[in-house]
Amino acid sequence: MAIDAQLIEALGSTKVLVGDAIPDDRRHDYWFLSHLHEHQGRHAPKPACVVRPTSVEDVVATVNTCRDAGVPLIPFGLGSGVCGGVIGHPDHVLLDMSSMNKVRDIDATNLLASFDAGYNGLEAENKVAEQGLTIGHWPQSISVSSVGGWVATRASGQFSTGYGNIEDIIYSIEAVMPDGSVINAGKAPRAAAGPDLRHLLLGSEGTMGIITGVTFSLRRAAEKQSCTAFFAITMVDGFEAQREIIQSGWEPVVMRQYDAQEARRVAGDHFREGLSLVIMVHEGPSEKVDAEIEEITKIAEGFGLESAPSEIVTRWLEHRNHVPSWGELLDKNLIVDTVEISAPWTKVNQIYETAVASLKEGPSNLIGSAHSSHVYRSGINLYFTFVAQTEKPDEMADIYTDNWQRVLTATAKNGGGIAHHHGIGRVRKDYLVNDLGETGVATLRK
Amino acid sequence: MAIDAQLIEALGSTKVLVGDAIPDDRRHDYWFLSHLHEHQGRHAPKPACVVRPTSVEDVVATVNTCRDAGVPLIPFGLGSGVCGGVIGHPDHVLLDMSSMNKVRDIDATNLLASFDAGYNGLEAENKVAEQGLTIGHWPQSISVSSVGGWVATRASGQFSTGYGNIEDIIYSIEAVMPDGSVINAGKAPRAAAGPDLRHLLLGSEGTMGIITGVTFSLRRAAEKQSCTAFFAITMVDGFEAQREIIQSGWEPVVMRQYDAQEARRVAGDHFREGLSLVIMVHEGPSEKVDAEIEEITKIAEGFGLESAPSEIVTRWLEHRNHVPSWGELLDKNLIVDTVEISAPWTKVNQIYETAVASLKEGPSNLIGSAHSSHVYRSGINLYFTFVAQTEKPDEMADIYTDNWQRVLTATAKNGGGIAHHHGIGRVRKDYLVNDLGETGVATLRK
Repeated sequence: MAIDAQLIEALGSTKVLVGDAIPDDRRHDYWFLSHLHEHQGRHAPKPACVVRPTSVEDVVATVNTCRDAGVPLIPFGLGSGVCGGVIGHPDHVLLDMSSMNKVRDIDATNLLASFDAGYNGLEAENKVAEQGLTIGHWPQSISVSSVGGWVATRASGQFSTGYGNIEDIIYSIEAVMPDGSVINAGKAPRAAAGPDLRHLLLGSEGTMGIITGVTFSLRRAAEKQSCTAFFAITMVDGFEAQREIIQSGWEPVVMRQYDAQEARRVAGDHFREGLSLVIMVHEGPSEKVDAEIEEITKIAEGFGLESAPSEIVTRWLEHRNHVPSWGELLDKNLIVDTVEISAPWTKVNQIYETAVASLKEGPSNLIGSAHSSHVYRSGINLYFTFVAQTEKPDEMADIYTDNWQRVLTATAKNGGGIAHHHGIGRVRKDYLVNDLGETGVATLRK
Repeated sequence: MAIDAQLIEALGSTKVLVGDAIPDDRRHDYWFLSHLHEHQGRHAPKPACVVRPTSVEDVVATVNTCRDAGVPLIPFGLGSGVCGGVIGHPDHVLLDMSSMNKVRDIDATNLLASFDAGYNGLEAENKVAEQGLTIGHWPQSISVSSVGGWVATRASGQFSTGYGNIEDIIYSIEAVMPDGSVINAGKAPRAAAGPDLRHLLLGSEGTMGIITGVTFSLRRAAEKQSCTAFFAITMVDGFEAQREIIQSGWEPVVMRQYDAQEARRVAGDHFREGLSLVIMVHEGPSEKVDAEIEEITKIAEGFGLESAPSEIVTRWLEHRNHVPSWGELLDKNLIVDTVEISAPWTKVNQIYETAVASLKEGPSNLIGSAHSSHVYRSGINLYFTFVAQTEKPDEMADIYTDNWQRVLTATAKNGGGIAHHHGIGRVRKDYLVNDLGETGVATLRK
């Protein structure tokens, strides 16, 4: 029996979409290259069928059916991935988790909130906000990504410098394993009960099991939020100020530095030619926020940074998730993407300069720039942006790949980590060995 | 060829101890039950031989030799484990990592310090302190435990409420895998490059690979340290104050609550009958510490807590790692141990009361008490202490096991996690399924 027929037998016909009933947007995620291919008429195929589960039992039945039939099963959240983790294949089954989208529990005493994996991120945040709480995880994709996808990709939010990345926010993960058993990883506030099984699933991008439910460790909404901004004469000055702030024990929830190129867009009318821009958001108990702002201002001034209007930051907060769609850019033959990496403090400037210089050497490139968006005691991330344009549409895919290669090669050669928070997917697959080594890749494969 | 002869061939005779050359203290760790057996003349056997490697290559050769011969290989740090992870067996090889004990690198810019796995914990802390830095990991065993052992057991330090547990402090782990390959897990300040392979090794207690080197993400020594203490009328008042403090966004690096029984010992002359005792240490930039103390004092008073002399805390800081040896206690026929568990806020008091009541019902029991020592947004840990005494030495082992059973059953039945930070070893092996579930245990086994 064909796999779609088997799944209809197992789950009923309403939960299995076949043929024309499969929506076009279940053929790939939000990877630029998939959208370029579509734009140029190279359409990704539809999967053999799409399963829309509404319960853990449905997922178990799907896993068992596909495993027994030897058919690959691809989990799909809300499709906001930007690394090409999902591309349709006519012999594969796509498991559309967006149909598992219920709030399970919100516990304001233990600060825990549980959701089905397919629940929308912004709706989850809004749901806990009703009780004065916050998940504190604000990826740019928050309105179009699922809470399960956050876990599957090891996502970071814009407030990560204060509130941590998804691995610091997750409390427990429910998943269906390849043998059809259900795991509940994470039971207590903290455990030394063998290796932490949540980390088998965090970043697994669908390879280790199907994430069906997640529980987050929440925070109370901050008593106070304030913003600060500073201009820096060089990126190095900005990096050093950021390092001093974080290593002194302060924790602005947001701390970003835009290079002179990007500062033009972010600072708007307040832009100052040639200067980079550091912006911060401070949250917490009122007294802590006040003490933090007083002290980080002294630190910043010590590195020659000059105060900038805080309205730059409030404007950023308002507009931070507005980005042009790939369609608008593709209509102009623009090749655009962002590439996030991470680096120790001693390597970051070398990576920044090497990668930006390399991007600027790209024959069709208009823009090569970067900002930092997540800060750690041991280092920082960089978020590169490239924009290229060509009158030869058939070169666009190669130009795209060439720009990724420029950034990741500069990063790996200069001692950085090739993936900060978007994950691996297809775009970074060949570079993974730079981070994990041969033994690491072999271990994952096993 | 016998395994010891094979290892001598592979590593040379100076690195392989056999027969009488094997020290007695390489037969077991610091588990109470092992010491009881020794005390009563039931001596643990020596292993087939003891390998003392001085390089990663030595460990690779040992792993390959033992694997090919089908002989179990048991890694041993400094022997401070308290769960019976290591017990000698005449057919097993013990890998004594205490011979791998070099400082590899201290990087004061990126706040990273790398050590061989067998390096002594307190020496590591002292080494980075020379440069004004701290690992910030202060287990009670710090002077007798190895940095690799911290990772293998998923240890916690006394300052974990502010500085995190070992998984928050580790930057990278070097290990020799069962196939003899060397893994370096953790390259960047943060990565979304597949599942975090460090977590295969954290808490693995020797089952996944041999940890040979560790790199920690350091902190600068705090600018200011201050202490506060409060009496609480009931444990529940204390828990609620602790919950309010942590959920309000304050982070005292130490926050502990002793029940009325234990407060007697900790408060000394300041003891007040029937009251529990909350102690805190505050560290960080001076302004942050001052703001924290002002606000947490208000919070504590709001829950009816009364300020206590801070010298209680400074005395605790001085004496916190002084504990009687098992030998002194065994000489008096005392059966003593501590059991650490963790629990969500809504479960902790029920667990506390149930477990202490059960300990007090133990027929030979003198003391059943508890304190908390690590605080999280979602909950807290409890550290139970039991003391029993008997005139029938042959009942001591059973009394010991019965007391563990009392605490872990009360914990599991009331929704807690059965292991906070000492690990599993032999003492918790049969309880592991309570935390991980059948699927979790099966996943680890695979």
